[in-house]
Order: sequence, then C-alpha cells, then structure tokens
Amino acid sequence: MRVDIDRDRLVETMEAQAAIGGTEGGGLHRLALSDADREARDWFVDCAADAGLDVRVDAFGNTFARRDGADPDAEPVLVGSHLDSQPYGGIYDGALGVVAALETVRTLNDRGIETRRPIEVVNWTNEEGSRFQPAMQGSGVWAGAHDIEAEYEKTDDDGTRLLDELERIGYRGDEPAEPREPYHAYLELHPEQGPYLEETGADVGIVTGIVGLRWAEVTFHGQANHTGTTPMDYRKDALVAASDVVTAVRRLPGTLGERTVATVGSLNVQPDSVNIVPETVRFTTDLRDPDEDVLETGVERIEAEVAAAADREGVEYELEHTMRAASVDFPERPVEAVADAVDDLGYDGRRMVSGAGHDATHAAAVCDTAMVFSVSEDGKSHTEDEFTSWPDCYRSTNVLANAALDLAERVD
Amino acid sequence: MRVDIDRDRLVETMEAQAAIGGTEGGGLHRLALSDADREARDWFVDCAADAGLDVRVDAFGNTFARRDGADPDAEPVLVGSHLDSQPYGGIYDGALGVVAALETVRTLNDRGIETRRPIEVVNWTNEEGSRFQPAMQGSGVWAGAHDIEAEYEKTDDDGTRLLDELERIGYRGDEPAEPREPYHAYLELHPEQGPYLEETGADVGIVTGIVGLRWAEVTFHGQANHTGTTPMDYRKDALVAASDVVTAVRRLPGTLGERTVATVGSLNVQPDSVNIVPETVRFTTDLRDPDEDVLETGVERIEAEVAAAADREGVEYELEHTMRAASVDFPERPVEAVADAVDDLGYDGRRMVSGAGHDATHAAAVCDTAMVFSVSEDGKSHTEDEFTSWPDCYRSTNVLANAALDLAERVD
Repeated sequence: MRVDIDRDRLVETMEAQAAIGGTEGGGLHRLALSDADREARDWFVDCAADAGLDVRVDAFGNTFARRDGADPDAEPVLVGSHLDSQPYGGIYDGALGVVAALETVRTLNDRGIETRRPIEVVNWTNEEGSRFQPAMQGSGVWAGAHDIEAEYEKTDDDGTRLLDELERIGYRGDEPAEPREPYHAYLELHPEQGPYLEETGADVGIVTGIVGLRWAEVTFHGQANHTGTTPMDYRKDALVAASDVVTAVRRLPGTLGERTVATVGSLNVQPDSVNIVPETVRFTTDLRDPDEDVLETGVERIEAEVAAAADREGVEYELEHTMRAASVDFPERPVEAVADAVDDLGYDGRRMVSGAGHDATHAAAVCDTAMVFSVSEDGKSHTEDEFTSWPDCYRSTNVLANAALDLAERVD
Repeated sequence: MRVDIDRDRLVETMEAQAAIGGTEGGGLHRLALSDADREARDWFVDCAADAGLDVRVDAFGNTFARRDGADPDAEPVLVGSHLDSQPYGGIYDGALGVVAALETVRTLNDRGIETRRPIEVVNWTNEEGSRFQPAMQGSGVWAGAHDIEAEYEKTDDDGTRLLDELERIGYRGDEPAEPREPYHAYLELHPEQGPYLEETGADVGIVTGIVGLRWAEVTFHGQANHTGTTPMDYRKDALVAASDVVTAVRRLPGTLGERTVATVGSLNVQPDSVNIVPETVRFTTDLRDPDEDVLETGVERIEAEVAAAADREGVEYELEHTMRAASVDFPERPVEAVADAVDDLGYDGRRMVSGAGHDATHAAAVCDTAMVFSVSEDGKSHTEDEFTSWPDCYRSTNVLANAALDLAERVD
C-alpha cells in the first residue's frame, strides 16, 4: 500500500522556500553561504524541528534532520538535495529535492507510519559551485572526495574565504563532515534539467546512473599579424585551428556512443581585433558519456583533433585535462525501489542516465544511491525561467516518498 | 642624374623622432593628440623651419611644410605620412615616411636644386585610429571623405573629445582642412608591414595600388543549455555555427583571387562557460582584394556561408556590413616615377599592391598618388619589434626623394 503526499502542503512549502532570496523575475538568487542561504537554512531547521526531527550540522554546514526508526541499530536512509541556487537561477533546482524529502517525513508522520530504519533529510552545502568552486562541494567533503581544510580556504570573486562565511552565517557545526555511521541508501529528487522526459511524454525519470565527464582546456599559440598585409600561406591563425576542433567536437558524438555529448562552451581570442590575425585562442572541451570506455576513446580523439588542427595551421598548443569524473551506475536495489513506486502509482516512468552531476554522485561512493527526476519544461535550468509544473512536483515527490518508505522498511 | 640622400642624417633624424614617446622595449607609444604627439609635432615644425620651409596647420591638425618651386602657379607635389603611433608600436610605421619627406627637401637644399613645382611635406593627424576612430582620419577629413564636425566629436576610451585634445595640444590650425589648391601628386613611403619584400629578396616595393576592403559583423543567436543534459540534436550552438564560418572564411581566398585575404579576427562567446552550450557568438569578417568584382563575390560567399551555418545549427543571425573601402589603382605617372627611380638607383624593386590602408588611400581621391614600401623584417608591424634596417630605410628614402624630384621637375 502506497502513501500519497499532501499536494497543497508541497506547493505551500515550495512557495515558502522560493520567497527566501526570490527575484523579481520569479527566480531565486540564493548563493551558497550568503544571507539568503542562511535564511533558507534557518527555515529548513525550523521545518525539521516542527516535524519532530533531530537536527545536526556538520563542520562543512551539511545539515541532517533525523526521523528515528524502530530499530536503533538499522542503517538509515538518507534523502535530500540542496537549498543554494545559481545566480538568478530557478526555484526548483535543489530546493524541490529538499522540500520533497521534508514532505516525505511529514507524510509518514501524518499517517503514523513507523519504519525500521531511520530516515534522514539532508541539505548539502554549496551544490551549485557558482560562488565557491567546485560544485557538489559539501557532499564531496562528506564523502571524502575533498579535504575539508583545503575547501575551507576557497574564496569567492570578492576574495571572501569560505570558512569565514560558514562561520558568519552560523553553520559551521560540531559534527565531523563525514558519514557518522554506515548508511543504507541515499535518494535524491531533482529536476531533469534536460528535455528528455517532456519530449517522450513521461511523468517522471528513474535515474539509473550519472554520466562520466572529462574536461580539458586547450590553448593554441599562433602569430598575430596584420590581416591586410599577411598572405594566407604565411599565417598561423589560432582561431582557425580552434574552429577545426569545435567542428570536430560537434561531430564526435555521432561516431561514439548513443548518449555521448561533447561541447566547446568557452572560447577566448587574443588580441581579438577585426584586423589582426588571432594569436592565442584558449577554449574548453566537455565530454560526457555513461560508458568509461567511450569517454577514453573520446578523449583520445579530441587529443588527435587538437594535434591535427595545430599541425595544419602551424600553431603550437597546450592541452590540460582539468576535470575527470567517473561515470556512476546506481545499484539495482534503490533503482528498483524507485521503479516499483512509479509502477504502483501508475505513472509513466522512463529509465535514464543523468547528464549532469549531483550530490548523488558523491553519495554513491558511500552507500547505495538512486535518483528521481521531475520533468523540466523545455529542459530549462540555471535560469529564472526554470519550470516544473505542480503536478510534476507532486508526482515526483510521491515517487520519492514511496521509494524512501520502501527502503526504510515499513513496520506497522 | 639622381640625388643621393644623407644616410647618416636620415638615421639621426629617425633616432631623434624615436626618442619622443619612446618605450623601454625600443618601440613607440605616441598616440594621436597625446602629449607625445604634440612633442613630435613641435619637433617636426622645428625641423621644417630649419629647412626653410613654410609651415601651416589646418583645422584638423594636418601640418604642411612647403618648399617653393620656380613656377608660383605650378601644382605642388605632396610627400609625407604620419607621426602618431599604435599603442606600443614600432618606430618606423608612419615616422619613416615623414622623416624621408623631410630628408628629401633637405637633400634638395644641400644640392641647391630648384624644382618647377613646390614640394610640401605633410604630417597627417591620427593615421593609426587606435585612440580615436577611424584610422586615416586626418587625410580622410582633408580629402572630404569625413565631415570635420563629426570627427571633432569623436571620443577616446576615457570619453575625451578629439576637438578638446586638438586644441589642448595647440594643433587646431586656421587653414580649412581641405586641399588649398589642386595638387599634382602625392607620394608616401611606408614600411610594407608584410613579408613579401623580404621573402622575395627585394630592396624596395613599388606600390601600384591599395586593396579594397569589406568588413562585416555577424551575430549568431542560439540557445544556452546545460552541456550535460542537452542531447546533441536538441542544441542550437552558436559557436558551432560560427566555427563553420571561420573555416569557410579561411578556405575562401583559395577559391577567389590570387591576392585575396580573409580573416575572422574578433570572436566573442556568451555565456562563455565550460558547461553551458554557447548562446550568442559575435564575430567579424575582414575580406581584402585588389579587384572589386572579387570582393563582391567574396561578400556574397560569406553571406551564403553564414546563412548555411545558421540553418544547419538552427540558430538565428544578423549580418551587418560595417566597413567598405574601394580598391585603389594608382595612376601610371607617379608609379613610373617610383619605378624609374628604383631602376636608376640600381635597386631590386617589386611591384605590389598594399594590403593595408594608408593616408595615400584618401590622397588618391584628390590627386595622382603612389607609394614606396620599405622592407619589414618578418612582416612585423604594430609592435615594438617592428624593424626596417638602416640600409633599407636609406634605399627607400632615396627612391622617394628621386621620385619626388622627378614629379616636381628639376629646373636648374
């Protein structure tokens, strides 16, 4: 027998959080460790206390709110996401996952349902990575991917230190920033941030893993020259070489995996003048695929394209591999808990791999992890125009609540 | 019988001007209408007075220094270039042409040579166009290509008005900025700013014209999206479209004229982030050729490539034609005066078309015009590393002096 969350309360709670750092454009400007983030954290702590949860804050500001289970020795089920936002981002990204986790325990409270395992609702610190880098920072520290002391020293664009801001807003907690005990599972609901669910007419996404990622930064060094007086065969044009690589990167996915995506997102030209042949061009490459072998092949091909373009145009180059994240396959048990909930609720669910990183990436290194995706209208994300309809928020929260209940093992 | 200029005095005069606004890197930082430009102008006026020339300054700061001829009714021969420099530019660009013109009249004085026509040495205001746009401004105003009142209102990056600077340095003269009488011819010596003469082992360039030029600015409007969650076939990537055009522009000269050059020199990406599909890319195109038909065909092909790239990638675009300069064919008489001087002096001269614009572009609309090019080592220009050897300065100045003498018609 399935539980049914309170649709009206879900909407009210989403609206309540959206008012904290809300923008005139209907979005959210709630950067990590800002005053708005503190206000959202305080609000979260109040909600958790109202729901009878036991709140604790770790040394990196990750906040856990526990609903006890019947078996005090049972490993808990962790459910949550993040309350920080992108600059002028949307009201769903991150927040929906935290609100849905709150709504899950509230629903269990309403129904007087006891679970064998404890359920903990978590709000991770700085998932977005827009004010302080890297993204998924709090979950990364917690999972041991990053050294906390190094992350404390990170600064924002104004030179403000992360630790100072964490202390200023009162969220440097006493608990070590690490799993305090073994966890049974982690579940996270998040907007898809892509068009797949909407395009296929699905209600909800059953996320089976997260793609792996390879980032590189390439610099071509050519020769600045007068565009009028320098014959074509005397040129070493760094932009021509870079454009060859942009085109090759665009073509790459069609010759690799079915789900490969590859992008040149950033590109800068020097001296950047209409009548000077480009001397230096720096650009990034971003390659993602669920299959590590495909990623390795893709990286080799990008390297070969860079070398060939440099050779063709007679320019020098540097290629630096700036980021590597292995792909994650979620284990069967939590994924099937999500899939069963979708089936029982009569929703149209699609199995899919997440193309974006999430706190679940790090949680997956600690315990069995799965995710639920809600529909993102037009796939819009990281903009005030981000939109997930209330019915889609409701359906995806219902899936999260029932999958969490399944994993936490109802006892009454 | 040919005259021979004073090699040592030429070098001394070049060194004297190079000390005004000279940089630690051995270059010149003498922006138009700056204090350094005033000092160079004062120095020029002193040199002219010492040579017995009659100096007048027009309302745009163009400065003319006249050596009278035997026939007071004969149309004068105008010889010169510009003393302003690029930011951290070289000591030859512009200055060599002015110094060579001074050396021409000094040599005639030394030899007691009388000419039928007057010879005027000119220093044009703001040829470089780096502080105030456009380039070749003073000669353009003089030739009637620009309205003086509009050019007075131009401002630099600090918002300083051109007219205010012209008055501040004391070079807003009384004469109207226009040809005061018909001119017989204009001659200008300038460094080549390209590799052609050096590569062919020539001593000096006999310039037969100036290429025509077409500039355009193109903007592609795509759609910003998450690089991880947006499948390749959902993308509207403005940078992919722009790269197609960069590649096409690189290929264009090979399918047009032998002397066509085409460049994308400036390109900007928004939002310019490693993990966001580029939404907006703005870039410039620069196309040059001596043949107007080739230019028109080239512009049509660029337009077609832009449209095709936009269509392929599903992006919108705007294309604006930002600058058009017709090609200039110098007439036979002054070109042959240069060629005869080269032959008589026993130099190895090459006929060539200038790939860069010069004050001669505007002068050609007023009177018969030709140019002499000196060798530019490695084709370097607009850099402190610009270099023309003293022997090359000497040879090219000798050509200028003898061509000027030819056109001015020796009478004694």
